Amino acid sequence: MKSDLDSLMQERGFDAIVVLGEVRENPALRYMIGGSRVSDGIVIKKRGETPVLVCNAMERDEADKSGLRVVTTNDFDFYRLIKEAGSLFEGELRMLANVLEHFGVGGKVSFYGREDPGKAYVMLRRLEEMLSAVTVSGEPEATIFDTAFATKDADEIAQIKSVAERTNRVMAKTVDFIRGHIVEQNRLVKANGDPLTVGDVRRFVLERLLDSDLEEAGDTIFAIGRDAGVPHSRGEDGDILELGKSIVFDLYPRGAGGGYYHDMTRTFCLGFAPDEVQRAYDQVMEAFDASVAALEVGEIGKTYQALVCDIFEKYGHPTPRSKPGTEEGYVHSLGHGLGLEVHSEPRLSVVGNDPLQPGHVFTIEPGLYYPKRGFGVRIEDTFYVDKQGDFHSLSTYPKDLVIAFE
Amino acid sequence: MKSDLDSLMQERGFDAIVVLGEVRENPALRYMIGGSRVSDGIVIKKRGETPVLVCNAMERDEADKSGLRVVTTNDFDFYRLIKEAGSLFEGELRMLANVLEHFGVGGKVSFYGREDPGKAYVMLRRLEEMLSAVTVSGEPEATIFDTAFATKDADEIAQIKSVAERTNRVMAKTVDFIRGHIVEQNRLVKANGDPLTVGDVRRFVLERLLDSDLEEAGDTIFAIGRDAGVPHSRGEDGDILELGKSIVFDLYPRGAGGGYYHDMTRTFCLGFAPDEVQRAYDQVMEAFDASVAALEVGEIGKTYQALVCDIFEKYGHPTPRSKPGTEEGYVHSLGHGLGLEVHSEPRLSVVGNDPLQPGHVFTIEPGLYYPKRGFGVRIEDTFYVDKQGDFHSLSTYPKDLVIAFE
Repeated sequence: MKSDLDSLMQERGFDAIVVLGEVRENPALRYMIGGSRVSDGIVIKKRGETPVLVCNAMERDEADKSGLRVVTTNDFDFYRLIKEAGSLFEGELRMLANVLEHFGVGGKVSFYGREDPGKAYVMLRRLEEMLSAVTVSGEPEATIFDTAFATKDADEIAQIKSVAERTNRVMAKTVDFIRGHIVEQNRLVKANGDPLTVGDVRRFVLERLLDSDLEEAGDTIFAIGRDAGVPHSRGEDGDILELGKSIVFDLYPRGAGGGYYHDMTRTFCLGFAPDEVQRAYDQVMEAFDASVAALEVGEIGKTYQALVCDIFEKYGHPTPRSKPGTEEGYVHSLGHGLGLEVHSEPRLSVVGNDPLQPGHVFTIEPGLYYPKRGFGVRIEDTFYVDKQGDFHSLSTYPKDLVIAFE
Repeated sequence: MKSDLDSLMQERGFDAIVVLGEVRENPALRYMIGGSRVSDGIVIKKRGETPVLVCNAMERDEADKSGLRVVTTNDFDFYRLIKEAGSLFEGELRMLANVLEHFGVGGKVSFYGREDPGKAYVMLRRLEEMLSAVTVSGEPEATIFDTAFATKDADEIAQIKSVAERTNRVMAKTVDFIRGHIVEQNRLVKANGDPLTVGDVRRFVLERLLDSDLEEAGDTIFAIGRDAGVPHSRGEDGDILELGKSIVFDLYPRGAGGGYYHDMTRTFCLGFAPDEVQRAYDQVMEAFDASVAALEVGEIGKTYQALVCDIFEKYGHPTPRSKPGTEEGYVHSLGHGLGLEVHSEPRLSVVGNDPLQPGHVFTIEPGLYYPKRGFGVRIEDTFYVDKQGDFHSLSTYPKDLVIAFE
């Protein structure tokens, strides 16, 4: 969590970290500035010290809401520097160098955030030339943020719970919406007699997200029939809602304006479930329940992936373990951490080598996919681990397969 | 435009360009892949050759819609490389090096897109060590994409016109929505007797954007009274719609999923306009009309900023020219280019040194701001320059100040 940053910097030998860029789609910067609605900025944190946020002078009021120490571009004569250099970039570079010098930043300094890669390359090489006291560094993977992100503090858990509640409500309202239609010739129809389509449902979901102060950052999956059997298919807007076909509804919005994610999936059959879908659903639920029953602090993520492969292989399904690269059966990993990013640590997969611990928030999402046979099933909850090491699902919406119509 | 990339590469001495990262909030990559809905990728373009898109094997079908030559991570054994290296990053790096070698990329290679800056720094330094034939380069500002973006081709203009039409319709529907309320005690009230708020209007706008396949990428501005006098204020959701106060409504959505922007502003007074607001509005319209009348291919952007300063100074308003840093009067620049980014070339400002030319798309947006006196006025249209060099506004919604109520 955020309070681990100093010890993580210590472990990795960083004297300071710098996080920069636009805030949008920039989880490290969003993490550092909390709920403050500035559009961009530079956060500088020396080891053991409170971070400093350098913001545009116009965004001073918003920046103050970050709780960080705030300085503005005006404090560092940004516009004079641009004018003198005759270049926006040279002004930016000079200001960054001046800020780092002003705050006595030296030693190994690691950079994060979001930037054009060519610009970052030029900027950081120049900065190293300009500042003899600074050694520029970066982390191409498994960064200190990846580690810090994995364990949530109380404030983050509160936000995550709020997003979870709202997401569950959107799921419930969407099912009510579907249920509010009538059946004609094996399909759902609207008041005007036209068939209800995936596009109609998607539109309803987007409106409810808007009502709920949530946003769709990735595509909501509402996939029926063959598409339900392809885990990365979002579903075709033109498809109609026929009875007896499996529908995979994977809803993973985040708080509006780039907040925390919730990730949950339900599989539905309208009217009735064909035998093979019911069987797959029962097996997925067995895998789900067995994983949840086995959750334990200290256990590593790959254990659960193996446990689920055991179950599915017992029923004769191919898995990534028995048949690497399979596109039928169980074709993916069991789960992933999430927070300001939708996929992060801990991994419940073959690369899950870190032990589960308090503060972790992650999904459990077994599934079975048979696109050629026209169906897929996935059930997914988001869990968190409390301070006592107990595991709680945040995806409380029921997991019933069949949505009944009289 | 896109067809200029080869000559721009020639001018700047680049033998190849590489654009990489996630597609979201990555205009250079979006530009290269067109409407294809892949989530991330690497585009490699050698000078004089068709670009190659390296995509995830699962996204092959979507990648093919880009019209580029497509290869997949499987073609380059990405997963084997990760496994051998024991690291995702080392696998990525090795694959990128292999792809560049495979396509015979050598000489000066400039990188663009969206990446963590520390990762970009490490990656590009390593790449240069690995590939003796490649000199890594980047452009920290005024990139070839900035130049190419500025002039739109026929396909882009068609998309821009479509977004413009839909944005104008949302503006019209919003005004109808406001007009559909009744006046009680100098303010608008809803059917339930509660006052109509800025938040109610914002919600209505978001729904209409959703209907129109548009998205809000930056905050829509709907600011009343004092907030209308602060150009960067988005307005307070709790504010109520009172008669006789100026409302600045700056609507700048883009096509859903990261498309082209349209940017337009209208200023409204409900019921009646106080004298000082009417006067400011008349002066803003004079500046607007004079700028538009003076538009000419070959003229540089700063000319128009000067022209508008002349007009506002004539009426006694401070301007950035007469009083640098002023927060009253005319406080910003006249306009900016837009496309996949909301602010780009050409600039109609003191740094606007490039001549206007066919294919340009830009705003004209004079304004006057008096926050202490509780009002602001801005009028903004998006214009494009056709092949014949004629200028056309795409923001056709009327500019009347007063919304009348009986």
